[in-house]
Amino acid sequence: MSLIVLGTVALDHVKTPSGTKKDMLGGSAAHFAMSARLFTDVHLAAVVGRDFPLKHLNFLKAKGIDCSAVVISKEKTFRWRGEYKKEDLNTAVTLATELGALQHYVPELREHQRHLPNVFLANIDPDLQIQLLKHVKSPRLIGLDSMNLWIAHKQKSLRHLMKMVHLFVANDAEARSLSGENNLIMAARRLRAMGPRMIVIKKGEHGVLFYSDKVMFSFPAYPVEKVIDPTGAGDTFAGGLMGYLSRSEKLDEKTLRRACAYATTVASFNVQGFGVARTASLSLREVEGRMKELARFFALT
Amino acid sequence: MSLIVLGTVALDHVKTPSGTKKDMLGGSAAHFAMSARLFTDVHLAAVVGRDFPLKHLNFLKAKGIDCSAVVISKEKTFRWRGEYKKEDLNTAVTLATELGALQHYVPELREHQRHLPNVFLANIDPDLQIQLLKHVKSPRLIGLDSMNLWIAHKQKSLRHLMKMVHLFVANDAEARSLSGENNLIMAARRLRAMGPRMIVIKKGEHGVLFYSDKVMFSFPAYPVEKVIDPTGAGDTFAGGLMGYLSRSEKLDEKTLRRACAYATTVASFNVQGFGVARTASLSLREVEGRMKELARFFALT
Repeated sequence: MSLIVLGTVALDHVKTPSGTKKDMLGGSAAHFAMSARLFTDVHLAAVVGRDFPLKHLNFLKAKGIDCSAVVISKEKTFRWRGEYKKEDLNTAVTLATELGALQHYVPELREHQRHLPNVFLANIDPDLQIQLLKHVKSPRLIGLDSMNLWIAHKQKSLRHLMKMVHLFVANDAEARSLSGENNLIMAARRLRAMGPRMIVIKKGEHGVLFYSDKVMFSFPAYPVEKVIDPTGAGDTFAGGLMGYLSRSEKLDEKTLRRACAYATTVASFNVQGFGVARTASLSLREVEGRMKELARFFALT
Repeated sequence: MSLIVLGTVALDHVKTPSGTKKDMLGGSAAHFAMSARLFTDVHLAAVVGRDFPLKHLNFLKAKGIDCSAVVISKEKTFRWRGEYKKEDLNTAVTLATELGALQHYVPELREHQRHLPNVFLANIDPDLQIQLLKHVKSPRLIGLDSMNLWIAHKQKSLRHLMKMVHLFVANDAEARSLSGENNLIMAARRLRAMGPRMIVIKKGEHGVLFYSDKVMFSFPAYPVEKVIDPTGAGDTFAGGLMGYLSRSEKLDEKTLRRACAYATTVASFNVQGFGVARTASLSLREVEGRMKELARFFALT
């Protein structure tokens, strides 16, 4: 079943210990879509500027991503410039952000997209996330991601939104900050009380914690020794999670466990290349091969 | 097969969000022994002062721990005073340390203990750890723990010691600091190159990473919602690990995985009470019950 993703499509300028790349295709929705496309049809809702390279747009389309709800604005494409230091490859240091076209973006959907059953609100201003939901008729599953910026500056909108979604994805720092709880299980419980019935906490190299009223579980991440560029790992994770859930009929425990295993595995590929370089060339077969390794990695005997 | 542990026996004064306890039985070897006794005979090598309450000593003996290599010094018992803040229950803030009898301690073993096959050097000055090893004839398995203090101030002795041991246990911060590597797998690889053929990295609430030339695996920790006092969790972990390995004939992959699962599970009990309160009353049956829950917690389907 098809999946709509709203989020950013950006031009990224990234420096890591492995090198520097300019004008890369990036943004939360681009990373998400590149991962979710492995599992289901993906419809991208985003804005780019006139400066956005046609090759990037054609690349997204060539990967089977429906770009009919991508708005091309007169303003410039959202740009992000960041660096990861050798001492802490998990934390991006943001050097510059140019919002450009994002500032006046009003999310849209084509008529044929309004009835699609699955929606993911990738990281973008929560007011835009709320606007997108107004276009969607009777969704089956709505997922939400956010970030520290919105937790700090738009928490009222974010809290309102949390009452409207089924699944909330956050990294450990965001979960702690939004819930005010340091213990991640307590944090998950508080987030659940804010609305979403499924809470998924991404713990980076430590994997994932899933929490709902009936089911709680955790996996370690697939062990990657050489991280090239962690940008978009969280979005890639969310893409695998929502992609797998979108194509599953039931949302039972088995499905949720497999969805989280797919999610953490796809994310482990993402960090092995710059931008979407590794996930763009990825096949489901490769993901499933690595999932077998992952299962072996944390088998008890 | 019996197990010797060298380490500290202390009087702890601990403040956590759950309360304050004074003059508690503590120290690396006490926590270790209280966990390892569940699996095998434990022989404790340590020093205490004349001020050490007889009830603590009798308590250790009543738990089946051989205290014949516990030296009673004229000086005072080692004391540690620390606090854990609500915001970060994983990190102890040390308020005071009184070395007392530790300053002039020379580790000893009784004649009948020199041929025991398994040895664990719990956290204590690495020069004392080296001295203890001189008393041991043809050990089968030697494990080692240390801490940031010795990594900073006695790294030469610690590095020398690492060439003499089979198994090295460290928490994630210590592993990163000693190896100079942020990625934990790379850190484990560097630590392995320093000598020990088995590296076990304790990741607190994130569980454990095991690394050797042939085997690598990881488990999340059993999810504890209400942490009462984390003091000694790492020593309790090491006690479970070494205790299980000591009673196992082979050190094959299956044994190592089960040993780490026991270790992380016993540690999860330790944090649910002050000092050794919870582990002292623990039975192997309770541990195995929780291990089943743990296996379910991270099952893929």
